[in-house]
Amino acid sequence: MFRITPIENGICAVEGIYASGVNAGFKKDGFDLGFIRSDKEMDIVYLFTTNKFQAAPIKYVLLKNIKKTNFILANSKNANALTGEDGIKDIVEILEFLSTKIHVKNPLMSSTGVIGVRLDKEKIKKGIEKFDFNEKNSNKFAKAIMTTDSFPKVVAFEVEGEFGKFRIGGVAKGAGMINPAMATMLCFITTDANIPENEMKEILSEINEVTFNAISVDGDTSTNDSVFLMTTRSADYEKEAFREALKKVMQKLALDIVRDGEGATKAVAFVVSGAKDKNEAKIVAKNLTNSLLVKTALFGEDPNWGRIASTVGASGVECYEKRLKIAFENVVVYDRGKIIFDRETERKAHEIMKRKEFKIYVDLGIGDGEFTAYGCDLSYDYVKINAEYRT
Amino acid sequence: MFRITPIENGICAVEGIYASGVNAGFKKDGFDLGFIRSDKEMDIVYLFTTNKFQAAPIKYVLLKNIKKTNFILANSKNANALTGEDGIKDIVEILEFLSTKIHVKNPLMSSTGVIGVRLDKEKIKKGIEKFDFNEKNSNKFAKAIMTTDSFPKVVAFEVEGEFGKFRIGGVAKGAGMINPAMATMLCFITTDANIPENEMKEILSEINEVTFNAISVDGDTSTNDSVFLMTTRSADYEKEAFREALKKVMQKLALDIVRDGEGATKAVAFVVSGAKDKNEAKIVAKNLTNSLLVKTALFGEDPNWGRIASTVGASGVECYEKRLKIAFENVVVYDRGKIIFDRETERKAHEIMKRKEFKIYVDLGIGDGEFTAYGCDLSYDYVKINAEYRT
Repeated sequence: MFRITPIENGICAVEGIYASGVNAGFKKDGFDLGFIRSDKEMDIVYLFTTNKFQAAPIKYVLLKNIKKTNFILANSKNANALTGEDGIKDIVEILEFLSTKIHVKNPLMSSTGVIGVRLDKEKIKKGIEKFDFNEKNSNKFAKAIMTTDSFPKVVAFEVEGEFGKFRIGGVAKGAGMINPAMATMLCFITTDANIPENEMKEILSEINEVTFNAISVDGDTSTNDSVFLMTTRSADYEKEAFREALKKVMQKLALDIVRDGEGATKAVAFVVSGAKDKNEAKIVAKNLTNSLLVKTALFGEDPNWGRIASTVGASGVECYEKRLKIAFENVVVYDRGKIIFDRETERKAHEIMKRKEFKIYVDLGIGDGEFTAYGCDLSYDYVKINAEYRT
Repeated sequence: MFRITPIENGICAVEGIYASGVNAGFKKDGFDLGFIRSDKEMDIVYLFTTNKFQAAPIKYVLLKNIKKTNFILANSKNANALTGEDGIKDIVEILEFLSTKIHVKNPLMSSTGVIGVRLDKEKIKKGIEKFDFNEKNSNKFAKAIMTTDSFPKVVAFEVEGEFGKFRIGGVAKGAGMINPAMATMLCFITTDANIPENEMKEILSEINEVTFNAISVDGDTSTNDSVFLMTTRSADYEKEAFREALKKVMQKLALDIVRDGEGATKAVAFVVSGAKDKNEAKIVAKNLTNSLLVKTALFGEDPNWGRIASTVGASGVECYEKRLKIAFENVVVYDRGKIIFDRETERKAHEIMKRKEFKIYVDLGIGDGEFTAYGCDLSYDYVKINAEYRT
């Protein structure tokens, strides 16, 4: 048995971890350059984008095969992607400069923003000069990595049980280019739990599948997606407790990303059950989060269940009209071949769709495959934000 | 050698073929019910949606295994999809009523519109009463099958060569739910060419791959997609000439659908070359037409080539930064690892993007796989049209 309690201070809730952000001149105002730093060297594991054109900061980590670090430098407004060897050289130069300011061990960078533009090294160096390395301010760091995000995404828990106690905190960014095959996002998680080395990556991957890999804003997979898990190993550990706490951290941040989806007015969970297997359930759930016709119907608060059915049918999985069931929360609109959609049902479903968050249930009535994916609606503002991104 | 000449009258350009449309009361005004009829029985082949929930009219054709017909009845505003056995019974009842009005042989129906609503048989019967079965008006028929289309899509050619001559005409509808895996559309093609039975389906499938299967408006595959090819067999035939003419008919109609994409302000060809093979080229080209970030950049006339590169990298095909090349028409912006994107290049690319139609070239520099897909931008109006569809 264990108890998970929400606490303040995000990634800095862990002892000996510092973080902050400054304005380095990329954004007109607001933070755009941040750091996470640890007194002790931390063990670090990571999951990176499946995009073949991995950004330079990702290439750098893989090249150096970094497994322990005490410093992460992060910037927004420039992804340092598609920048070739120059992109990596820029990172080396910046991190060398950093090492003249503070003792760093295997420092690494993490970037997000426009693709295909060289980093402005001078601005970043000037930003580094502004750092107060002893600040413990997760919020400033969270803001420094925001792009089109409208709010900083921060969370922390203390976990206590018979095994003792540990803390875990996380910060994430992401609002657009969010895709089921790993969202366009950065996520940094710190803990002091003394996780066995071989379990770090295993648990991170497992939880990632049902959190960041289950959300979608627009179905695009970026060049920079990264999730980092770091531990100082200075506290206790119990596998189940850690798994549960990590899931709470990642679920909260993943849902925050959907809630903050570019232009989104609502966050919707597509709960798919009764599929042949889990994989087919996942295909259906993710297709539903990505269908433009479903997303625009959500925006219009129109219980157009035909579009949901059509998307299920188009997804290529095993399904039959006579077994399919669709419901908006507890309002069933189609039940195994029967259309249950009179004026009253439509009104009820429409009322549910006015909520900020709700669930749509799709049961295929075949096997016991289940998966829940999280998506949002597609509004005028999504188009506005993305049509005007660079201007 | 042969000569292909555009002619008037669409599907009615073929002798002995009649078509028209009436208002049956589904649309406030404008045509919503139409027919295609032939003096002679026609051989007919068809390609249907890959959606597992095929609409009732499709099930009916497959059930009856119709290979010859002299009558097609088509309606808009209701897809007769997800309507189960009732949907098929409704078709039977309607076609029986039709047979009391005119001599029909294996008549069939084709529907498009909202999913999951029973047909209003009485309205359709009243509409049938209004038909003038001797009208030859492709335009009225084309209008009768329009949903969110903003213009009717009609084309016809006369083909003359040493072999003799034949005619071919086509009509299509489609503007939304348009997807690479067969667009949400209906297409009816008539000809008098005496095509050998075994070649009809083969040629239709082949041309469909590079026309209707190469376009995308929103990446959704409907329950009703259908392409019909019918021939009276009363004229001459030569395979190459027919293949070429059919391609011209289907290409024109497919591009009309993209040009008329819901809310679209421009039609863009994504010409992908240098892929490992044709299949990988196709994956890249179609992903480009479906990426929301690419589509919104097109709408914003923003030559944000990083989003194009990112989409290529996310598509899962073999690709390398150092071999990739991206150009807007003749303006190269990224050349095998080099970013060529100064102020002047950006200005030129932006000018090109202001055009109504242009090409984006993506070369992967690996093999000789090529594919061209056709897409459009994503505008506020797409959202508006689809958020308000049923209201």
